[in-house]
Amino acid sequence: MKQAESHILVIFGASGDLTKRKLIPALLELEKQNLLPDALAVLGVSRTNLSDREFRQRMTEFLGKNEDEKLVTKFLDRLFYQSISTSESYDYPVLKDRLLTIAKEKAIPENFIFYLSTPPQLYEIIPKNLASVDLNKSDDGFRRLIVEKPFGTDLNSAKELNKNLLNYFAENQIYRIDHYLGKESVQNLLVTRFSNGIFEPIWNHNFIHHVEITSAESLGVENRGGYYDHSGAMRDMVQNHLLQLVGMVAMEPPVVVEADAIRNEVLKVFQSLRPIKEEEVEKYVIRGQYIESHIKNELVKGYRQEEGVDPESRTETFLAMKFFIDNWRWAGVPFYIRTGKKLPTRVTEVVIHFKKTPHHLFGNQYNTEQTANQLVIRIQPDEGILLKFGMKVPGAGFRVQSVNMDFHYEDLADAQRLPAAYERLLLDCMQGDATLYSRGDAVEKAWEYVQPIMNAWQNNAEIPIYGYPAGTWGPDVADQLVEDGQWRYPCKNLSNDGTYCEL
Amino acid sequence: MKQAESHILVIFGASGDLTKRKLIPALLELEKQNLLPDALAVLGVSRTNLSDREFRQRMTEFLGKNEDEKLVTKFLDRLFYQSISTSESYDYPVLKDRLLTIAKEKAIPENFIFYLSTPPQLYEIIPKNLASVDLNKSDDGFRRLIVEKPFGTDLNSAKELNKNLLNYFAENQIYRIDHYLGKESVQNLLVTRFSNGIFEPIWNHNFIHHVEITSAESLGVENRGGYYDHSGAMRDMVQNHLLQLVGMVAMEPPVVVEADAIRNEVLKVFQSLRPIKEEEVEKYVIRGQYIESHIKNELVKGYRQEEGVDPESRTETFLAMKFFIDNWRWAGVPFYIRTGKKLPTRVTEVVIHFKKTPHHLFGNQYNTEQTANQLVIRIQPDEGILLKFGMKVPGAGFRVQSVNMDFHYEDLADAQRLPAAYERLLLDCMQGDATLYSRGDAVEKAWEYVQPIMNAWQNNAEIPIYGYPAGTWGPDVADQLVEDGQWRYPCKNLSNDGTYCEL
Repeated sequence: MKQAESHILVIFGASGDLTKRKLIPALLELEKQNLLPDALAVLGVSRTNLSDREFRQRMTEFLGKNEDEKLVTKFLDRLFYQSISTSESYDYPVLKDRLLTIAKEKAIPENFIFYLSTPPQLYEIIPKNLASVDLNKSDDGFRRLIVEKPFGTDLNSAKELNKNLLNYFAENQIYRIDHYLGKESVQNLLVTRFSNGIFEPIWNHNFIHHVEITSAESLGVENRGGYYDHSGAMRDMVQNHLLQLVGMVAMEPPVVVEADAIRNEVLKVFQSLRPIKEEEVEKYVIRGQYIESHIKNELVKGYRQEEGVDPESRTETFLAMKFFIDNWRWAGVPFYIRTGKKLPTRVTEVVIHFKKTPHHLFGNQYNTEQTANQLVIRIQPDEGILLKFGMKVPGAGFRVQSVNMDFHYEDLADAQRLPAAYERLLLDCMQGDATLYSRGDAVEKAWEYVQPIMNAWQNNAEIPIYGYPAGTWGPDVADQLVEDGQWRYPCKNLSNDGTYCEL
Repeated sequence: MKQAESHILVIFGASGDLTKRKLIPALLELEKQNLLPDALAVLGVSRTNLSDREFRQRMTEFLGKNEDEKLVTKFLDRLFYQSISTSESYDYPVLKDRLLTIAKEKAIPENFIFYLSTPPQLYEIIPKNLASVDLNKSDDGFRRLIVEKPFGTDLNSAKELNKNLLNYFAENQIYRIDHYLGKESVQNLLVTRFSNGIFEPIWNHNFIHHVEITSAESLGVENRGGYYDHSGAMRDMVQNHLLQLVGMVAMEPPVVVEADAIRNEVLKVFQSLRPIKEEEVEKYVIRGQYIESHIKNELVKGYRQEEGVDPESRTETFLAMKFFIDNWRWAGVPFYIRTGKKLPTRVTEVVIHFKKTPHHLFGNQYNTEQTANQLVIRIQPDEGILLKFGMKVPGAGFRVQSVNMDFHYEDLADAQRLPAAYERLLLDCMQGDATLYSRGDAVEKAWEYVQPIMNAWQNNAEIPIYGYPAGTWGPDVADQLVEDGQWRYPCKNLSNDGTYCEL
């Protein structure tokens, strides 16, 4: 394992939500586990006027109550704050001076990571301004740039953004966040596939019938209606997170476990996606919007009634699609993606549906339904994997029953606590490992794939957007996408009114 | 499911141990589950003088205390007793009369099953005597003969026995008991293999490294020293039970799930066993005898000190062997068998050791040991299956850890109680299903396979028999048989003195 060199982490947007809720707690956790470099400073940057002390004070609230006092003191001592007008280049010499001062005082080499935790409009301006004071490159120390999602809002804007970033930073300096890739269970997909001799031989069109990826949320848009109404499920979930998951599930074994080797393979998957043409969109993609309903006997608003949402909005809160990967491995195997808000539960899982046995040996005589093996990779919650397979029903004859063999990640001796995605991603960037970040070409390829679908929706008012009652699994018509009319039902218990279920 | 026709079950050796401890309780259990034919009578036969009433009385003791009284009464009413001198043909007209009388009184068609639960010497005499009064065949009802183990003591005696039986009964009337085949978990081997699409594609020499079968007993010979000293592990366990297990693990998919189709495939496996020649025995077969030791701090006798055992006995209480199956599927895959008495625990399991991944992707960078997948099929106790596979260790990088995914048969909703082997076997014979009984040709083939090994031991006093302290896993030299010098260690906890372990 590479050790992270000492550096200064500059967080743009330090007064924002992400910094407080995710980044600072993740950094403290890394501190606790002794994974931070000895000399690390974190410089919060935003427009708000704050002293170092006030900034530290503010951050304290987000550290949890029962932390070790000595540890917290050590951690807070790493925090600094600089108020600048991030959009104005004239403020950047101030920033540079501050960085050099901290580096000198704390004996930190001139290694800088710039974390753009700001509104997307600033993704183009900040790099340019950093370049104006030569903070974008160095012959000695490293300069890295972390860019938060969303990375563009369509193909053109993503290309534009890439182009602009690459004006000032090299591709290997740019770390595009996809926090899904930071999840243990997503990374474990690679390990499951490539450290087990028994899976890879059957991981192809000869033995796999179809692949199903579900990412369901039980929440609605909450207080983010204004933002979400300009985004929708395709931009918010599919183009980034779920296509990355597809990449992990479908890729060829990489040459080595390194950023570029892995990202080369993910790119190849994206390049092999069979394009869905505008005129095919209705056939392959179902979109939906949640409508007013009762969940647990409480009236729940429909999407169009949410604050900040256009009452005539056609933004999709649900999306189900079927697609193919036209390559040697996956010829003819349908992939299905389903994601939505206000579904009956919160769950993300990948389900490999294997083909049935070529001969149904026990069927004719013992009247046994022919079941197929399933490998369920649970991304969240209850990370783990589940294998469904046939066993003999005790007693006379040879009746077969489908049973579950289950592995829960939390059962691992040293997994009392799975590291949060941001811990892993921050640490990786500190160590210069971009494996779990998206590469520019793949991001563009993913946009290229979804763009015709979004175009069809925009250009063709006749393509329906189906309503589905909040608390259901989306519009019924989504079932018709799937060959046998059935998505996997991940719940065990259904509430009395049928709108809420438990895993 | 075929329904068993009404019939009379004749148990020869009715005053013996097996009748009381296994057969009667198994029959009561079938009664409880309503699986017995409406009109079924059980006629106990032996030399002892007993009335029906006395016989019922005796059997009552073995029924368990908390049985439903009505049920027990119904069951006991089925029992009858006839004292004859089983070795004397002049007594058989008496037996026949009694059978016809019961059949008439109870309105049972003339279907008879004869269960030979007697000393093996009588296996030849009783069929002949039955034939002398035409009880061996019939144009109307069925006549079936169940033969207990041991089926011969070597190749010649088994052939002789087969020949003699076939003089009076046809092969499809003969049911040779192998109570291992009656075990749920052994039958489940077939279901695991042939109802799951994911196993069969990798169930061959391309993906399997070796196969290991262990059947360990913690008990010694107890009060059966006199009998055991003429038998030994090869006759007692390997020739019958363990080779049958090999047959189930290694066979090709049968044409249908029927007795002859399955037994054809088992026979093919036996025909493909690469013979171990007399001069190769030392290389491929290790035999041992337990010697005096302390288990749980108590002095435990060695085998040669057991009652009834020759103080210079060379009978093996432990056997480990390596062999190959020379066919298309198993070319080059070593099979290992290990069985013994006074081992640290009681366990029977089949372990499929898969090959390691062809490329050790995570190894070089993350210093991870390359582990191989294992599928452990637990026959007893705690019937079930266990899959060992690699998962990611939570945290930075991609370290791999081997974890267990476990299925316990007892977790099946309707498996609170697994049927005992004898229940299944008795019921099958009643239904005319010989799937789980051994066929004559396969039994001979199995003897043919082990005979040269027994000959070598007999003819060559230089082949060592290794002592192993009671409570250990057999002689150390057995480890050298296995390629990497390691049998799977099925225990979790080892006792302080290292001689007793828990699963």
